Amino acid sequence: MGSYKGVYDREILSKIATNDGHGENLEYFDGWKAYDRDPYHSTKNSNGVIQMGLAENQLCFDLVTEWLLKNPQASICTNEGVNKFMDIAIFQDYHGLPEFRSAVAKFMGKARDEKVIFNPDRIVMSGGATGASETLLFCLANPGDAFLIPSPYYPAFNRDLRWRTGVNLIPFTCSSSNNFKITKEALQSAYEDALKKNIKVKGIIVTNPSNPLGTVLDKDTLKMLLTFVNVKNIHLVCDEIYATTVFNSPRFISVAEVIKDMPHVNQDLVHILYSLSKDMGMPGFRVGIIYSYNDRVVSTARRMSSFGLVSSQTQFMIAALLSDDDFVRRFLVESRDRLFRRHQHFTSELAKIGIGCLQGNAALFVWMDLRHLLDEATVEGELKLWRVIINEVKINVSPGSSFLCSEPGWFRVCFANMDNATLDVALNRIRSFVTRGRVDNSTMTTTAATTTTTTTTIKKKRGQMELRLSFNNRRFEDGLISPHSSLLSPHSPMPQSPLVKART
Amino acid sequence: MGSYKGVYDREILSKIATNDGHGENLEYFDGWKAYDRDPYHSTKNSNGVIQMGLAENQLCFDLVTEWLLKNPQASICTNEGVNKFMDIAIFQDYHGLPEFRSAVAKFMGKARDEKVIFNPDRIVMSGGATGASETLLFCLANPGDAFLIPSPYYPAFNRDLRWRTGVNLIPFTCSSSNNFKITKEALQSAYEDALKKNIKVKGIIVTNPSNPLGTVLDKDTLKMLLTFVNVKNIHLVCDEIYATTVFNSPRFISVAEVIKDMPHVNQDLVHILYSLSKDMGMPGFRVGIIYSYNDRVVSTARRMSSFGLVSSQTQFMIAALLSDDDFVRRFLVESRDRLFRRHQHFTSELAKIGIGCLQGNAALFVWMDLRHLLDEATVEGELKLWRVIINEVKINVSPGSSFLCSEPGWFRVCFANMDNATLDVALNRIRSFVTRGRVDNSTMTTTAATTTTTTTTIKKKRGQMELRLSFNNRRFEDGLISPHSSLLSPHSPMPQSPLVKART
Repeated sequence: MGSYKGVYDREILSKIATNDGHGENLEYFDGWKAYDRDPYHSTKNSNGVIQMGLAENQLCFDLVTEWLLKNPQASICTNEGVNKFMDIAIFQDYHGLPEFRSAVAKFMGKARDEKVIFNPDRIVMSGGATGASETLLFCLANPGDAFLIPSPYYPAFNRDLRWRTGVNLIPFTCSSSNNFKITKEALQSAYEDALKKNIKVKGIIVTNPSNPLGTVLDKDTLKMLLTFVNVKNIHLVCDEIYATTVFNSPRFISVAEVIKDMPHVNQDLVHILYSLSKDMGMPGFRVGIIYSYNDRVVSTARRMSSFGLVSSQTQFMIAALLSDDDFVRRFLVESRDRLFRRHQHFTSELAKIGIGCLQGNAALFVWMDLRHLLDEATVEGELKLWRVIINEVKINVSPGSSFLCSEPGWFRVCFANMDNATLDVALNRIRSFVTRGRVDNSTMTTTAATTTTTTTTIKKKRGQMELRLSFNNRRFEDGLISPHSSLLSPHSPMPQSPLVKART
Repeated sequence: MGSYKGVYDREILSKIATNDGHGENLEYFDGWKAYDRDPYHSTKNSNGVIQMGLAENQLCFDLVTEWLLKNPQASICTNEGVNKFMDIAIFQDYHGLPEFRSAVAKFMGKARDEKVIFNPDRIVMSGGATGASETLLFCLANPGDAFLIPSPYYPAFNRDLRWRTGVNLIPFTCSSSNNFKITKEALQSAYEDALKKNIKVKGIIVTNPSNPLGTVLDKDTLKMLLTFVNVKNIHLVCDEIYATTVFNSPRFISVAEVIKDMPHVNQDLVHILYSLSKDMGMPGFRVGIIYSYNDRVVSTARRMSSFGLVSSQTQFMIAALLSDDDFVRRFLVESRDRLFRRHQHFTSELAKIGIGCLQGNAALFVWMDLRHLLDEATVEGELKLWRVIINEVKINVSPGSSFLCSEPGWFRVCFANMDNATLDVALNRIRSFVTRGRVDNSTMTTTAATTTTTTTTIKKKRGQMELRLSFNNRRFEDGLISPHSSLLSPHSPMPQSPLVKART
């Protein structure tokens, strides 16, 4: 075994290998470590930590497995498909199987309510959205160049977009005062600040639907962004990996839809990231997609995709699955409905105990407002509360500061990576914590609604505070899925973290 | 569609996107284009170009498919395995499935005749050997640093190792005078030249078995390399992706075996690249492996593997396949035997018509000596002959100059990516070409043998020349496989090239 001495490492290894650009050592990963040390299981470890830090979509696997059993020819490992085994096993063309690209392009259109037609020849595959986003940055920017990004934002972008490319990310602040909307003023200001510092801004990257907000961009914002990049001659990268998770109005509007109405905008500047990890719930299959309107980016990214091609076994199966129009139609309807019901159940139960969330309509998480539970409105105050949630409530959620949120007290809480029973255990724990520890339940009353949230005044032991809650009708969802198999969890000597996962 | 104007591209895109570092535009790819335009098919296009530029291993798929049908639980898409579908589809931990790493480690040991035990915790997965080699370079060297590499060498290293990392490759020459062996003198001289130019040399990379030579490194050479890197405190990267293709003596010796006997060598400097693309013939599945003795490299490369994880569907299947000791034993024996027979048939038929090859004992190709057919012993002469081979003989082979071979007239010819019938068509074409066009067959006689080759003197229309031939007993192999399905070839508007494939 080698020495770990830093000086020695720096001498023989690369700067990338010896800096902390990966970010795995941040304290934010303590919650994951707590979960890894003591994972909840309904019978084997009912007092363990419940994982609500992982944006997995487990709600519709019954539809997929039912389809697979009816379509054994979709696998090269069945009697019906094995005659294709060799042709698929040797297929490593970086264009991908034509039927795979066609099926993905069609699915991307359906995921956007068929408002847009995607061209299969612009589909570039990559190793998950992680690989896709890095590849795109390698094409668009040189080391030292920067991309602007609205905060709060998906923290692993710091790894995906910066680590090996040498590109910088410059966050610009969105705040709760306007429901975290992107404003032209904040964007312009960040752009000008960068120029003053002699940083070359090469583009803007947004997630739509937003991670961590669970909201969608409206058409005006998308138009503003397109106009902005067009004027500045920089890129707009739209990460749309949660496209089909939009379960409530307003509907999802893709940049692909908006750009159709803006013929004066230079399409060479517009790029979409996509994957099947969230929309289909299959992060393990590493289906990442770059869809670019720029021919040179398509050809260069495709060449780079050799570093992370999708397994041809998986391409073949996905091609068959997504080519089945009936399946896709049913899946999209059912997936949205189940997410809607899950979200409603979760947020309305939280509302009952005085916990509000930003009004969201998409993704696999809520942006939970615990500002009223902070001892002090600082990052330290947020992290203090967070440690209580991890260690006493025994739920792993993600603190807003890990997403570079400018306002302490927000938490991202995932709700689609478990079964109903586990969700209810989590809700019971939160209820018990808030009731016992922090809130005089008898005085809790609902009062007025704002545009996007409903306001409740609660009397807390530590003082009065206004809470913004989302109240909605709630329906109960039938149990459809089983929890993670503990048999499959890795037993590695390496410490675990959210970045162990390609996308959290 | 965007403008292709270079100036415009350079303004908005990255240097990587606008330079030619990928190498796809080299003239060497004309042979591939010729094949893509006019691919041979036994019945549909019997005058088409035969692909002998692609190092695929198609000889043992019957064993794999037979196993799959007997083991339906190895697939998550069968009745027997579908209950695991969700757990596998959501699995994206960068450590990989524990059973996958164990099975691969065990297979790597068996592929080296169980002379070495590989530790599953040192197995890092990556998107094929392409992704693995880039990832390793990202860990070991900074932009501007260099690796020494013996030439001739696998040309796509220029893409894999240099393109996005910014690392340089410095070739040092091996020549036919000693059967292209690596000498300490050449290595030392290249190292010193680099120092004089103020280039920081961070390591040496070798392929063992060699691509394109089809030979293995002997123990003394490996010891010399290990001593050299240890003294200089630089890295030794051994690409062993052809480990199980060694079909004849001398047996394969892995660096892992040699290092056991050299306790004074700093193991932190030693790294192995592996994959299942050649040994198992499954490049489409993108199973690339980094095995490093350096803990820091293991942890950093593992973090980087998020950019190119192996599909969990494929991990699951491979884990089951390679965990079956009986299958692996039978596969290894049978694969070597079939490669042996194929190689013997091909080289002995070539020998009959006066064409020699470097005496090889491994890999999926021969290093064919056509120096006697050159009009002039220059790269231009080699490429002139090569174009005749492509356009008249209608075989795509790879000219030595594309591997940076210092001596014109050598060609890499792949023999395991087709069925017996196609190989015989190729042999007939070569025979006919040599007989009609270049060689007075009646005067061809076999004369003396050297240590590694057999020498024949033939009378050519264009002059006399000595030929080095490998003569061997030959056995005929039963037809076991079918040719590529033309249905699966991609129909993309982008031009094709060998770099379309991740590994050629």
